[in-house]
Amino acid sequence: MHIAIIGAAGMVGRKLTASLVRDPMLKPHHVDRMTLWDVLPPEAPSDFHGRVDCHAADLSEPGQAEKVIASRPDLIVHLAAIVSGEAELDFDKGYRINLDGSRALFDAIRVQSLADGYHPRLIFASSIAVYGAPLPYPIPDDYHHTPLTSYGTQKAISELLLADYTRRGFFEGIGIRLPTLCIRPGKPNKAASGFFSSILREPLVGQEAVLPVPEDVRHWHASPRSAVGFLRHAATLDLQPLGPRRNLNMPGVSATVGEQIEALRRIAGDKAVRLIRREPDDMITQMVQGWAPGFTAQRARQLGFTAESSFDEIIRAHIDDELNGQLL
Amino acid sequence: MHIAIIGAAGMVGRKLTASLVRDPMLKPHHVDRMTLWDVLPPEAPSDFHGRVDCHAADLSEPGQAEKVIASRPDLIVHLAAIVSGEAELDFDKGYRINLDGSRALFDAIRVQSLADGYHPRLIFASSIAVYGAPLPYPIPDDYHHTPLTSYGTQKAISELLLADYTRRGFFEGIGIRLPTLCIRPGKPNKAASGFFSSILREPLVGQEAVLPVPEDVRHWHASPRSAVGFLRHAATLDLQPLGPRRNLNMPGVSATVGEQIEALRRIAGDKAVRLIRREPDDMITQMVQGWAPGFTAQRARQLGFTAESSFDEIIRAHIDDELNGQLL
Repeated sequence: MHIAIIGAAGMVGRKLTASLVRDPMLKPHHVDRMTLWDVLPPEAPSDFHGRVDCHAADLSEPGQAEKVIASRPDLIVHLAAIVSGEAELDFDKGYRINLDGSRALFDAIRVQSLADGYHPRLIFASSIAVYGAPLPYPIPDDYHHTPLTSYGTQKAISELLLADYTRRGFFEGIGIRLPTLCIRPGKPNKAASGFFSSILREPLVGQEAVLPVPEDVRHWHASPRSAVGFLRHAATLDLQPLGPRRNLNMPGVSATVGEQIEALRRIAGDKAVRLIRREPDDMITQMVQGWAPGFTAQRARQLGFTAESSFDEIIRAHIDDELNGQLL
Repeated sequence: MHIAIIGAAGMVGRKLTASLVRDPMLKPHHVDRMTLWDVLPPEAPSDFHGRVDCHAADLSEPGQAEKVIASRPDLIVHLAAIVSGEAELDFDKGYRINLDGSRALFDAIRVQSLADGYHPRLIFASSIAVYGAPLPYPIPDDYHHTPLTSYGTQKAISELLLADYTRRGFFEGIGIRLPTLCIRPGKPNKAASGFFSSILREPLVGQEAVLPVPEDVRHWHASPRSAVGFLRHAATLDLQPLGPRRNLNMPGVSATVGEQIEALRRIAGDKAVRLIRREPDDMITQMVQGWAPGFTAQRARQLGFTAESSFDEIIRAHIDDELNGQLL
C-alpha cells in the first residue's frame, strides 16, 4: 500500500511518518511505500523497510497537485496548511494555500478519476476552528459552522468540497477535525494557542512559562499521539457508514486551564506549577474565548476514534513520547 | 442610492427590478440608479424615474467582476446562479459560476475596499439547499450544513466566504437562504422542484399538472413576492446585530403536498384539484425526500423578515401578481 503524506514536514506529518516506520500495518494492508511532500522536501526516515520518496510541492502552484497524484497513492493524507495566525495576517496566502491548494488536490484527483477510475482514500486534517462563539458546551455533532477566522473558513470550505467530491465518487474522503494538540513538542511559539502547551511543557523541564488567560478558560485537547491515532484509524476504517457526512469532530479532553494546572501538579508537583507566571493578555484572552470548549464527538467515538480521557494522560503521553518517560 | 442587481434577468431579479420601479424608497434612501447585470443584457424597465444601465457580464470571466463594481454601487444584490439540476449535471459549470463567480465578485470588492475604503452592502441569494437529509423538523437556526448537491455545496461555500469577507471589513454582507419559491410563474420546467409550483399554477388556469411524489412530502415554501420582500428588507435592515453570523434562514410556510392541494381546493374548488394527475417518479421522490421540511427561521423573524403564514396566502399572492386577481 502506497501512502502520500502532504505536509509531511510538519509536527503531525513527522509523527505519522515515524509511526508508519515503527508499525507499517494498516489492516488489512501493509504500507510498503511512502511519498512525503512539503513545501521543502521532508527528511526521509532512515529505517523504513519499504520505498520512501521525498519531494517539494506547493499544491496551489499550477501542475503541482497533478505531480502529487502522478504516482497514484492508494491513500493521501492532506495535512498541509498555513496556520491560523498566519492565515489571519496574510489573507492571500491563507486562501491560496488552505483553500486553493486543497481544491487543486481534489480537482487533480477528480480529473484522474474521470480519466481512468482512480479512487484513492483521502484523509483531510480539518480543525475545530470551523466553530466560532457563541458555542454550547458540549458542542453536538450537528452544530453549525461559524468560523471566526479566515483559517477556520478555509477549513470549513475544504470540508464542504471534500464531502461533495466524495458524494460525486471522485475519491473516498474523510475530514478529521483535530482538537488543539497538546502538549506540542518544541519551542514556545507565537501561536495564540501556544500557551496551552507551554504552561505544561516548559515546567516539566524546569523552565518558566507564561499564562496569558484566566484559569477558567475551557478548551478541547488531544495529544499529538492521539492525532496520529486518528489518522491511522481513518486510514483503515470502513467509511461506508459515514454516508454523505464525511467530516467528524474528533474525541478529546475538555479542560479548563485550571484543570490543566492541577493535572500538572499531580504529575510534577508544586515546584512545576510555581514555574507558571501569570501575564494576562486581553487580546489572547478574547480570541481564546471564541474557541470551542468541548464536543460530544459522538459519531467519531461510535466509529472507534479514541483519545485520552484525562489531562493526566495527555501529560503522560508527552513524558513518554518526548522526555523518554523521565521527569526531572 | 445606486443598486446593482446581478442575475437581473432571472425571475427574482425581474420582480425585484419591477418592485424598485414601483417603489424606489429603501429607507432612508431613495433608489435613483439601477445597474442590471446578467449573462445577456437584461431588459431595462421603461418607467423607472432614475437612471438604468443594462449590461452583460459573467462574473467567472477575468475582469468581469471588476466591471460590475467599477460604477461603485452602494448596494449589490447577487442573484446569479446556475440552478441545482444544471450544477449537478455540469460539475465544472456549476463550480465556475456558483463558486468562482461569487468569489470573484467578493474579491473585486475586497481589492477596491483595500484601495480606497469602498464598502458596499452585499445581499447574497443563498438557498435551503445548504441543508441535506437526515434533517429534523423544524430545522433550528444552528443546524449544520450538509448539502447533498453540488449546488448546495457552492451556496454553502459562498456563505462562508461572505461571512469571512464581512468580518474582515471588505463589505457589509448578508446571505438570504431562500425557501423554494412557489408559485413560480411561467411554463413548467424540468427542475426537480418544478411540480411544487406546477400542481397549483396549471390547475388555476384550467390545465393539467403532474404530481410525481406522494402527498406526505413536506417542504418549505414562500412566494416570489416574499422573496422580493426579503431582499428589500435586507437592503434596509441594520446589519450590526447580525454580528459575524451573516447567513439567515428565511421564514416561509411548511406544508405537505397534500396540504398544498387542500389549499388549492379551498381557493379554486374540486375542478382544479381534479386536474392534478399522479405519476409517481421514484427519482424525484428520492431527491425531494432529502430536502428541508421546514425551519424555525427564528433569527430572521426576530430581525423583521416576513413571509406568508399559510399556503392559501401563497396561492392568493400568485392570483394577485400573475393572474390580475382573477380566477377562471
